[in-house]
Amino acid sequence: MAQTQQVKDLAAARAKSTFPVIDLTRYIHGSDDKIARRRQLASLISNDPVFSNDTRVGLSRVQDVKQGLAMSLRLYQLKEEHNLTHEEMLTCMDFIDELLPVGLHETAFIPIIYAQGSDEQAKYWGPLADKHQIIGCYAQTELGHGSNLSQLETTATLDRDTDQWIIHSTTFTASKWWIGGLGAICTHALIQARLIIDGKDYGAHGFIVPIRSLKDHRPFPGVKVGDIGPKSYGGFSKIDNGFVRFENYPIPRENMLMRFAKVTRDGQYIKPPHSKLAYGSMVLLRSHMVRGAGMTLARAATIATRYTTVRRQFNVPTSRKDTANPALETQVINYPMVQSRLFPIIAQSYAMLAAGNKMRSMYESMLSELMQGDISSLAEVHAISSGLKSTCTTFAATGVEDCRKIMGGHGYSYFSGISHLWSTYVPSNTYEGDNFLLTQQSARYLLKQIKVATTDPEKVTPFSKYVIKTIDQEAFQAERCSVETVNDWLRPEVQLAAFEHRAGRLVGDLAIAAMQPGMVWSDLNLECWRLCHAHSQYVLARSVVEGVAGVRDQGVAKETVRVLKRLSDLFALHTIQASLGDYLEDYYVSPAQCQSLRQQIKNLQDALADDVVGLVDAFDFPDHYLNSALGAADGNAYQHLWDAAQREPINQVEVVDGYKEYIVPILNQHGAAKL
Amino acid sequence: MAQTQQVKDLAAARAKSTFPVIDLTRYIHGSDDKIARRRQLASLISNDPVFSNDTRVGLSRVQDVKQGLAMSLRLYQLKEEHNLTHEEMLTCMDFIDELLPVGLHETAFIPIIYAQGSDEQAKYWGPLADKHQIIGCYAQTELGHGSNLSQLETTATLDRDTDQWIIHSTTFTASKWWIGGLGAICTHALIQARLIIDGKDYGAHGFIVPIRSLKDHRPFPGVKVGDIGPKSYGGFSKIDNGFVRFENYPIPRENMLMRFAKVTRDGQYIKPPHSKLAYGSMVLLRSHMVRGAGMTLARAATIATRYTTVRRQFNVPTSRKDTANPALETQVINYPMVQSRLFPIIAQSYAMLAAGNKMRSMYESMLSELMQGDISSLAEVHAISSGLKSTCTTFAATGVEDCRKIMGGHGYSYFSGISHLWSTYVPSNTYEGDNFLLTQQSARYLLKQIKVATTDPEKVTPFSKYVIKTIDQEAFQAERCSVETVNDWLRPEVQLAAFEHRAGRLVGDLAIAAMQPGMVWSDLNLECWRLCHAHSQYVLARSVVEGVAGVRDQGVAKETVRVLKRLSDLFALHTIQASLGDYLEDYYVSPAQCQSLRQQIKNLQDALADDVVGLVDAFDFPDHYLNSALGAADGNAYQHLWDAAQREPINQVEVVDGYKEYIVPILNQHGAAKL
Repeated sequence: MAQTQQVKDLAAARAKSTFPVIDLTRYIHGSDDKIARRRQLASLISNDPVFSNDTRVGLSRVQDVKQGLAMSLRLYQLKEEHNLTHEEMLTCMDFIDELLPVGLHETAFIPIIYAQGSDEQAKYWGPLADKHQIIGCYAQTELGHGSNLSQLETTATLDRDTDQWIIHSTTFTASKWWIGGLGAICTHALIQARLIIDGKDYGAHGFIVPIRSLKDHRPFPGVKVGDIGPKSYGGFSKIDNGFVRFENYPIPRENMLMRFAKVTRDGQYIKPPHSKLAYGSMVLLRSHMVRGAGMTLARAATIATRYTTVRRQFNVPTSRKDTANPALETQVINYPMVQSRLFPIIAQSYAMLAAGNKMRSMYESMLSELMQGDISSLAEVHAISSGLKSTCTTFAATGVEDCRKIMGGHGYSYFSGISHLWSTYVPSNTYEGDNFLLTQQSARYLLKQIKVATTDPEKVTPFSKYVIKTIDQEAFQAERCSVETVNDWLRPEVQLAAFEHRAGRLVGDLAIAAMQPGMVWSDLNLECWRLCHAHSQYVLARSVVEGVAGVRDQGVAKETVRVLKRLSDLFALHTIQASLGDYLEDYYVSPAQCQSLRQQIKNLQDALADDVVGLVDAFDFPDHYLNSALGAADGNAYQHLWDAAQREPINQVEVVDGYKEYIVPILNQHGAAKL
Repeated sequence: MAQTQQVKDLAAARAKSTFPVIDLTRYIHGSDDKIARRRQLASLISNDPVFSNDTRVGLSRVQDVKQGLAMSLRLYQLKEEHNLTHEEMLTCMDFIDELLPVGLHETAFIPIIYAQGSDEQAKYWGPLADKHQIIGCYAQTELGHGSNLSQLETTATLDRDTDQWIIHSTTFTASKWWIGGLGAICTHALIQARLIIDGKDYGAHGFIVPIRSLKDHRPFPGVKVGDIGPKSYGGFSKIDNGFVRFENYPIPRENMLMRFAKVTRDGQYIKPPHSKLAYGSMVLLRSHMVRGAGMTLARAATIATRYTTVRRQFNVPTSRKDTANPALETQVINYPMVQSRLFPIIAQSYAMLAAGNKMRSMYESMLSELMQGDISSLAEVHAISSGLKSTCTTFAATGVEDCRKIMGGHGYSYFSGISHLWSTYVPSNTYEGDNFLLTQQSARYLLKQIKVATTDPEKVTPFSKYVIKTIDQEAFQAERCSVETVNDWLRPEVQLAAFEHRAGRLVGDLAIAAMQPGMVWSDLNLECWRLCHAHSQYVLARSVVEGVAGVRDQGVAKETVRVLKRLSDLFALHTIQASLGDYLEDYYVSPAQCQSLRQQIKNLQDALADDVVGLVDAFDFPDHYLNSALGAADGNAYQHLWDAAQREPINQVEVVDGYKEYIVPILNQHGAAKL
């Protein structure tokens, strides 16, 4: 077949890249060995018929869950056949790109048993779980309680006589709900329940609770378990999120996880040693989510960048021309309206990857400090991880859907590849801490830093230093952005100063508001939200600036540094522009500076235009994983869209199922046509 | 069963309404007779098992389309059984709340035949279509062309010898794509193709093209037709959007729609009389979309308002307390973070309904002027309808998903009712004029008004009067917002002046930019977009202000006027706040005014808190149509969520399908557990 115009267009755009793409693939994925191994694992999945993209969509809910089970089994078989490490199996799970019924068994049940079980418990339950001779889930949220864990209504009451816990759903709203793996597959659940001894309530603790018999998979008496039904937007389609209720259901006392709190045979409750170590795993999870937000948005950006490069629409003059093809319509990516929406998304993707790296290294140094009993960085790292989780997952969810809209009509086809991506990603804005609630934690932390700044300014933590400047309000209010020329906006210190000033003003305002007599903290949650995002944007911008500096030191091509610097600048300036009111409100930025800011953003978009295809290629997403007719690496978008439609089950017959039953009666309701 | 706390909570909130809800139901739906008839039609649908909500979700794609056919047939049967008018049948179609395979037959194919067919054609084809003895679709977009209709690649070439058109897909990208009703059901298509006679191209015209045989529904030779596959997010699931390609496919010359352009037996092309009347139907469609945006957002607002009223989470102090239940957790709707997101959405819903009314009356007076040959209002009405389509459908799509997020975790259950609503609504941002492209039309129009203002200021059209003030730039730049106290923000003239000033500044800036030497228009499309939304927001705010004045004159309760005025104020002030940078950038609004603006928004939210349940009740959505466990009128959210899950097919068996095939091998891969 002759090469289509679309294939030529993408190849031509790719050839224009000014930097060696492999530099950035290494920046994102590490050494060449790691890149190669990653690609091998990806092809394990893409070459296996169980993971074919053609058979994933358009199934009934019952078929979907069944397919999730089939994929789970195949994943375990691949692990054996190819002798994969646990880490490699998790990478394969990423490439499968479905939440699987065994997903939380691997990522929650097993780690929690090892982390919160006593040594004996870990020794007993750990291998059973590792070999998936039992399959577990993690059951925390209930119908009535999600965010507020302290009010869970499931109880575990000690029966001293039988030495058992009686697990009970005390109310209707105590029903566990949303639990991944509970609806169909699990044999055991790690249940969070309020521990009660002699009528005394010790709060939520974890218990290993048998759910279904290993003999025939039937639920045990006293256990009412099932699937909660479909999720929104077709997301989470292969996983069996479930519910469970317990009716005075007894389990052995030893099934309480006892690494920290303990209950003895004689019913004595032994308090856990006070520990902030538990925050560690939350920080780790959220730092994963920051990188995850970057990779998710990167995937949508890859699809949208490739498709808008090959999509042509309207013969209109643009300042950026495809001079090789003057007779053809304009490539959509050459319209400023598209560039101004898409390029910042590419920049955000890279920024979040940089912040993910930063979080990871902060986590690691915090961990080694904690090992030595030094908890000084814990509070800041926790606050930053909360704030970044909120900001980054919001950026990603919004940006992915923006990418779909950027692609116009065909973006709404399932085959664009955005539907599956976004529908499964968007609840990340709610789980692991609702993005709106989380912002209060960051804000509270920053308020505390203001207090520290007034008493011990040298003790203010690294990312909060800017609060010191707010103490002298007169000087602070006189601060002005130093930009004089358009190119001044390219100075990192100018950019970071702007982020710092804005966050500083908002934390100052919040501090004043919080001190008003009679002020109720919850009345300030809008202000907390504004402050938290301002702070997180500062952290992101700083991570990006430091990331560029780091790459510069790693001996990559100077062209690579140049393009990363442009992305860094675009991220910073676009982010400032998106909240310009905050910078104008206290005269920090002047109207003339607004104009030059917009001009510089345009300049950056022009400068990046030749490199965007290379920038998304660098993410190194295999076609099978992108699963996008419009975003395939060869650019043959229309052909792939056509081919995908031809493979549809509905097109395998000439006359649709339902013809005789419905169409004939419609046509004949008023007698057949006389043509 | 005892009344649940949730039921009590919603009833208590409902009882607090300060105004007679029926006043606003009449405002939205008209007379009591109309309200009653609307409810009757709704119950026709809700009482019919074919339209049961329980069987709609979780189907395979093949089953989905089959169900769409079943629903289509049942709709036509109901029309006969209940002697419904065409208008009433369309109302029933709304209540069915699915895009049906016969949907575009009713709303596009039939109206176009009557509007663009000659009298003889209307007489021949009209009754066939009315009685659905043939079923048609409207085939315009192609794989390669959506927005740019002038470049369609399907041709209709006159064969003088046979007196036929030869319909042909000249390229691969000429394949018609996205056509609703084409994939499975239609017998005929109204094809837009470029009309060619003797090698001369006369541009796109409409042709009635037989697709499938009325005998056995098989496609005719030369016609390759099928379904394009699933859409994003589970949307459009019951409709058969299709593709078609033609291979030199002949149809009679008479099948060209000939009310305007004509082609005679001897191959003579007769040009249509130049007419701007065609704009009329576009204006009408877009004015429907403005009301539709309001009703769509209203539906999500109803669900979110009711659910956040019954959802309680955290025992924390708030300034708004449920004094009757001090021991219970706080109702989520009492948190300022929720109010500040949800209440403006309610206000937007009402604002868009007001703008829909305004558009409708503008359309009607324009139509009667057009009948008398007066085209003076056409350009403005067209520009406003384009701008409002873009702004309102964007508000609605964003707002619906915001409502889901406001509801927290359970919002992501399919049973929240948001999934179906949003997934089917969101492409409205792209179809009928891409929301980003459309903004250029409004902006161009406003630029022309500046020219008019310099030469004939009295000829500037009613909604563009503000451009006159921009002529004297010195005076314009000296304009300042007149607000001195918090309550000054409640003055409609203050609000409208702010909207006018902002739009005026942006149109002035655009005019200056457009005059720069060498400036390419497409480089300004970001500026056009900003201007268009500023103008549309002004139109919305003005419609709302005028709407309140209109209601005041209609003799409703003064409490009703008061609550509408508050909504109007909240809409205006929240909209200003959302783009505060634009108002600050030229010093129109001062920092102190920003503070008082935020304070006034809080005041309005407090004032509205007792009325929000009444405000959403007034929309009068039946439960079946809301199809939301969380938003049902009785407030029994958790019980409905539980019940919906119990009815899931997956829960009708004790052990899941796939147990033996997949779960047993997983459990036994490393030998069975020894517990």
